[in-house]
Amino acid sequence: MEREISQAVIRRMPRYYRYLDELLQSDVERISSNELSNIMHVTASQIRQDLNNFGGFGQQGYGYNVQYLHDEIGKILGLEEIHNVILIGTGNLGHAIANYVKFEKLAFRMIGLFDIDPKKIGSEVGGIKVMHMDELKDFLKDHQVDIAALTLPKENAVSVANELVDLGITAIWNFAHVDLELPGDVVVENVHLSDYLMQLSYSIAQKNK
Amino acid sequence: MEREISQAVIRRMPRYYRYLDELLQSDVERISSNELSNIMHVTASQIRQDLNNFGGFGQQGYGYNVQYLHDEIGKILGLEEIHNVILIGTGNLGHAIANYVKFEKLAFRMIGLFDIDPKKIGSEVGGIKVMHMDELKDFLKDHQVDIAALTLPKENAVSVANELVDLGITAIWNFAHVDLELPGDVVVENVHLSDYLMQLSYSIAQKNK
Repeated sequence: MEREISQAVIRRMPRYYRYLDELLQSDVERISSNELSNIMHVTASQIRQDLNNFGGFGQQGYGYNVQYLHDEIGKILGLEEIHNVILIGTGNLGHAIANYVKFEKLAFRMIGLFDIDPKKIGSEVGGIKVMHMDELKDFLKDHQVDIAALTLPKENAVSVANELVDLGITAIWNFAHVDLELPGDVVVENVHLSDYLMQLSYSIAQKNK
Repeated sequence: MEREISQAVIRRMPRYYRYLDELLQSDVERISSNELSNIMHVTASQIRQDLNNFGGFGQQGYGYNVQYLHDEIGKILGLEEIHNVILIGTGNLGHAIANYVKFEKLAFRMIGLFDIDPKKIGSEVGGIKVMHMDELKDFLKDHQVDIAALTLPKENAVSVANELVDLGITAIWNFAHVDLELPGDVVVENVHLSDYLMQLSYSIAQKNK
C-alpha cells in the first residue's frame, strides 16, 4: 500500500479490533456496517471509509464476516507477530503495565523487567524477576526485544531511551512525561497521562461555559 | 467563543502547556514561534494556526510572552480551577495514577480513593485512606467531586460508571478497557492502554514492510 493513511484512521483501528474481538466472543459471525455503526457509535459511512483505506473487507448485501475482519485488522495492526517487550522502571505504573495488558492475547509478551533500585532487583512482577539495568546489555545479546516500555521518571527517561537506542531498540512505548528526541527510524508511542487529564479538564470547562 | 475547535487542536494544547511550563522553569521570558517550532518539532505555521483558534496571543516582532501564553493556555484548559478527583480501584494502576500526576500543580487534587477489596480498605495511598465503595454516596454528599478516575477491571467498570453518574458525577477519566455508554452531559476521557500498544505495533509493521 503506497498511500499514506491518516493518523486519525490508524488511531481508530484498535477500537475496531476491540469491538470485533467482543463480537467474536459473543459468537457473532457476521455484521452489517449499520449494526457495527450502532454498537460503536460512529457512522456507517465512517466505518466504510476507514476500512476502505485498507481494501474494504465488506460484501454488498452480506456485511462483514466478523472473524475475517477481525483477523485482517489484526494483520494491519501487526498482531500476527509476537512482540517481545521489556519494561524499564518497576514502580506502580510499571507493575500496572506489566500486568494490565493481556500481552499473550494481543501478541505482546513481557520478557524482561529492569530497574536501578536495589530494593526492586530480584523481586518478581507477574512471574518475571526484576533485573538491574547493568544486565540489560547482556540480556539484549541473548533475546530479541521488539518494544521497550519506559515507566520511569521523566528525569531518567531521556538518558535511558538513548541507551536503549544505542543497544539496538527500535520501538519505545513511553510513559515518561517527556517527549523523546530519537533517531527517525525509532518508533515511539507516547502515553502522557496528564495530557489526557488536561483534555478532560478542557471538556469540563467547555461544558460549564 | 462560538466556533467548534477541532479535537486535533485540543489534543495538542496540553503539549504546548507542558513545553511552556518547562520554558518558564528555565526562566525564558519570551519566545518566537520559530524558536517554539524548533523545540516542539511542529511548524511555526501550525503553532500560529493552533493558537489563533483561541485568539492568537503573539505579537508581531516580539513573539510570545511565555508566562502570558502559559497562563492563557492554562485558562483554556480549565487549569485555573482546582478539580477534586476521586479514584475507584486501587490496584497497581490506581496507585500509579494517584501518585503519578502532580495533581496540585496541574490543578487536580486527589481527595478520595475507593475499592471493594477488604484487603485494601483502610490502607493508605499517597496519604489518603482507601474507603469502601459503600461509603461513596455519603462521601459525595460532603464533598464536591469534579472528576472520577476509573482504574478497575473492565467487568466492573460499566456498573460503577453508571452508579457514579447516578450519584451526580459528570466527568470520568476512564482507564478500564471498555467504552462507557453514558448520558451526553457526562464527559469521558478514555485511556485505553492496549490501543496505544496496538498503534505502536502498527508502526513497527509499517517500518518492517
